[in-house]
Amino acid sequence: MSRLDQQLNLLMELDKLKSVLRRTRIRCANGRFENSAEHSWHVAMMALLLQEHANEPVDITKVVKMLLLHDMVEIDAGDTFVYDTAAYETQQQTELEAAKRLFGMLPDDQSEALFCVWCEFEAAESSEAKFAKALDRLIPMLLNYHNNGQSWIENNVSVQQVMQVNQRIEKGSQVLWDKAKLLIEEATENGWLRN
Amino acid sequence: MSRLDQQLNLLMELDKLKSVLRRTRIRCANGRFENSAEHSWHVAMMALLLQEHANEPVDITKVVKMLLLHDMVEIDAGDTFVYDTAAYETQQQTELEAAKRLFGMLPDDQSEALFCVWCEFEAAESSEAKFAKALDRLIPMLLNYHNNGQSWIENNVSVQQVMQVNQRIEKGSQVLWDKAKLLIEEATENGWLRN
Repeated sequence: MSRLDQQLNLLMELDKLKSVLRRTRIRCANGRFENSAEHSWHVAMMALLLQEHANEPVDITKVVKMLLLHDMVEIDAGDTFVYDTAAYETQQQTELEAAKRLFGMLPDDQSEALFCVWCEFEAAESSEAKFAKALDRLIPMLLNYHNNGQSWIENNVSVQQVMQVNQRIEKGSQVLWDKAKLLIEEATENGWLRN
Repeated sequence: MSRLDQQLNLLMELDKLKSVLRRTRIRCANGRFENSAEHSWHVAMMALLLQEHANEPVDITKVVKMLLLHDMVEIDAGDTFVYDTAAYETQQQTELEAAKRLFGMLPDDQSEALFCVWCEFEAAESSEAKFAKALDRLIPMLLNYHNNGQSWIENNVSVQQVMQVNQRIEKGSQVLWDKAKLLIEEATENGWLRN
């Protein structure tokens, strides 16, 4: 198979990410659940808009790459709700296998390079990964906040869970974590998060 | 209003792009229409995967930026079907106004920088814009081809229209245009495009 055919096969496989649903709803129209493909676009745009708020200087190309491909593994592994900590642990192996299968569809050089980007995001240690992770945590909070706490209420989420899961935003951006804390405070006052 | 609040306001406004529907259907699930947000993700991923097939060397960061924001204007202007050439002409002014309103929500420096990227894409003259435009043309053809000609059949599209509208793929990538011609040939043989 030619390099181009390998690449196009993966591209068509990626279409499936448009059918992986998250727990967050979009704000407009019928308030349907958001899918992981449109979420990936939204969070990549977020990186372009908010780059200046990263704690450390970041290579924006790498941040955007990470965010574009970070959820590809959900094609095989499905979306794991961020507050389902039990599932999160068992999910890791499934996602690793999904990454190997999907990136493995590409020519070797490209497969290795993109797999490395995915692993770097998962490891959450580089400046780029910490910032990308911060954005990926913050965006559903923003949508929830503007949806009157929709996903927090539907899933009976507590303020302690939100603080614990999202505190790591601070590692990527102090500015964004400060903003997040204000939203959490207001959401708690509004009764959108249980105590 | 702080810079951050301006940026977050635009980010939340962008959520609306998830409700702008295109004429192409996704391949999985119920075959619903694709929206412009998930399309933007798909075509940005396409740029990462197919960069090596650009006619000229491209700054991939710029290509990805262009593709992430190229359809933002549809929030105000709606999606125009690529084969609706009459609408295409009147659409330009509406899209320009949409770009001014949306980018205008940002701090001045950022507003200007992103507006320039959008204009560069629209002008289709730089290497990056020609390649980005080529990808944006090719991806619905690929989806259609893998959907047994769905959108071509539903919209009564002719082989002449497809050739005329998509020939400019060649300006961004000869390799991808050669591939596209093979798909068009096969689609014609299969009766998915009228003569």
